[in-house]
Formats: sequence, structure tokens, C-alpha cells
Amino acid sequence: MPVKPEILKVTNTANSRLFKVEEIELRFSNGVERTYERLANRGRGAVMIIPVTEDNEVLLIREYAVGLEDYTLTLPKGLIDPGEDEHQAADRELKEEAGFGSHKLDTLKVMTSAPNYMGHKITAVVARELYPCRLQGDEPEEMEVVKWPLEKLDQLLLDEDFTEARAIAALYMTRSFLQK
Amino acid sequence: MPVKPEILKVTNTANSRLFKVEEIELRFSNGVERTYERLANRGRGAVMIIPVTEDNEVLLIREYAVGLEDYTLTLPKGLIDPGEDEHQAADRELKEEAGFGSHKLDTLKVMTSAPNYMGHKITAVVARELYPCRLQGDEPEEMEVVKWPLEKLDQLLLDEDFTEARAIAALYMTRSFLQK
Repeated sequence: MPVKPEILKVTNTANSRLFKVEEIELRFSNGVERTYERLANRGRGAVMIIPVTEDNEVLLIREYAVGLEDYTLTLPKGLIDPGEDEHQAADRELKEEAGFGSHKLDTLKVMTSAPNYMGHKITAVVARELYPCRLQGDEPEEMEVVKWPLEKLDQLLLDEDFTEARAIAALYMTRSFLQK
Repeated sequence: MPVKPEILKVTNTANSRLFKVEEIELRFSNGVERTYERLANRGRGAVMIIPVTEDNEVLLIREYAVGLEDYTLTLPKGLIDPGEDEHQAADRELKEEAGFGSHKLDTLKVMTSAPNYMGHKITAVVARELYPCRLQGDEPEEMEVVKWPLEKLDQLLLDEDFTEARAIAALYMTRSFLQK
């Protein structure tokens, strides 16, 4: 493993309600210096939930994504609230976004989104033994829930509304996990 | 498909060298109003390259990721330069980051990273028929190249240095693509 660069200086260069931008001056072990920017980490991390029915179907949600200015097909997800562990957060978000609770939660993997400029982490959690239960969250509208057979994952990838890399990775990992 | 929310107002709330933050006021079709923040889109998109050898091994790179303040195992990637198409950008980045060119490039899928707060898109490109060729890029140090058998993908997921969701998704899609 290479020797990590030395961090010479971290400067907060911009702030908004959600985002905090930092400039980081680094010296690599070969002496080369670089200045990078990144989004600072906030909060306790997030969870992405892969709800799987007894018939091996996953519950996708159709959610408005303001980054794309369009509806997108993805998996339920959300930030971990204070006092919650990953499974409690997963169960709550599943109830808020898809209207189901789960009696059987399994953690698959902690994933990063774009580690070159942000430290954000999201934990993929498989949710099984589902039962109907709706919790009121802060969602502006009720999300459409779309059932999709896990064995037809390759066809889902042809859908241009299904693009989120974290959801693609989570579904493949789930298929592999359930085959074991 | 639901009716898209009406965008009432977009305000630029923070700027740094790389990032531009926007606040968006929306009215959903049910009348509910929300104010969100997002990172504005910049540039021509990006490519992630999945280099596959004749022996069905992928070439991973070990790169310093300032978001994590650590080295991470991932796939070569980079921004598309002016005048380049996706395949030209993929071939160039592969030469810069892994020291290989490719005679056979195939586009797999356009992926998004975190569509709820950014519009960034990255195209996964499989690169085969590799040949040694190093181009000097803007990398601060030469990256270690790690060969990994595609058939042992599940074991790679156990590695805590391999976390990037876009790379996980890209490798699974590549395995599926090559099995066809």
C-alpha cells in the first residue's frame, strides 16, 4: 500500500444549507503537491434498502430527483437519524418510502459514491419478511412502488429511468447474496 | 409516469472552484412545495473504463481519494475533454491511469451517482484488446494497477478498499455483458 499524502492545509471555501466545500492542499510521497476540492462529510451516513418479497421480487420506487429534474426508478434510501443504527434507519425509510416494514434485515456492504471528491457513505441493507406498514416521512408525495423480478435484472438495466449506480450495485449484490 | 413538479425558482447559493450549489424551489403536482439544494452540472460528463484482458482479468487501479483521505481500489475514470467522444475519452484515461490502450471499446450504460442532489453522469465503457501505452496525464503519481479475475468478483466485494458503487455496478454489468 502506498504512503498516504501529507495533508498540508484544509480550508473551508464555500457553504450552503446542505453543502460545505473544502480545499485540501496535499503533498504526495513523491513530493508532488496538489490542491483538491471536496464536499465535507456531514451526518451519520445513509442506508439504501433492497426490499425483496417472498416471490423474489424487489420493490423499486419512482422518485423525483432534482439533480436530473425528472422521475427516476431507484431503491428506497435515506439518512440515518440520531440514535438509530443502520437497520433501524433502513426499516424506517422502507416504511416511509415504500409502505413496508421488514422482519429480516441483512447488511451487504458499505458503498461510496464519488470518493475523489466526497466521503459520503451508504450502507446497502437487504430487507426480507416484508409486511405492509406506512410511516409518514418528509416526502412531498407518495412514491409509486414498482415490483421487479430479481432474475430479470439485466432487463431493468435497459430502462433509461434506472441509472443510479448505487442501486445497480445493490441489486447485483443482492442477487449474489440470495444465491448463496 | 407522474406529472413533474413545476420549478418555481433556481438560485445560485454558493460557488467554489469546482462546485456550484443551486437552491431549487419546486411545486409538486399535489400542490406541496419544497426547496431543495443540488450541485449544478458542469462539463461534458465522464467515463469509467472497465479494462478486460484476454484472460478475463480486470485492471483495477489504486488511487488516492481525498474524500476518504485514503487509497482506494477502483476503475480508471475521468472527465470527457472538449472535442472527445466517450470512447476517445475512455481510451485516453486508460492510457493515463493504467498504461494501456484499447482496440475494442463498448459502451455499457450511462450511470448517475446521487441524482437526488446532483445531475452528474458517468458512462461505463468496457475496454478489450489492450496494448501497453502510457500517456502523461495530470495524475500526481503513477497508479498501481491490480489485476483481478472477473469470475472472483464476489471476493473483491469483501475488500474494504473496494467500495465505489459505480465501480461495483460497472464490474457486475461487465460480467453480465461478457457472458452474453
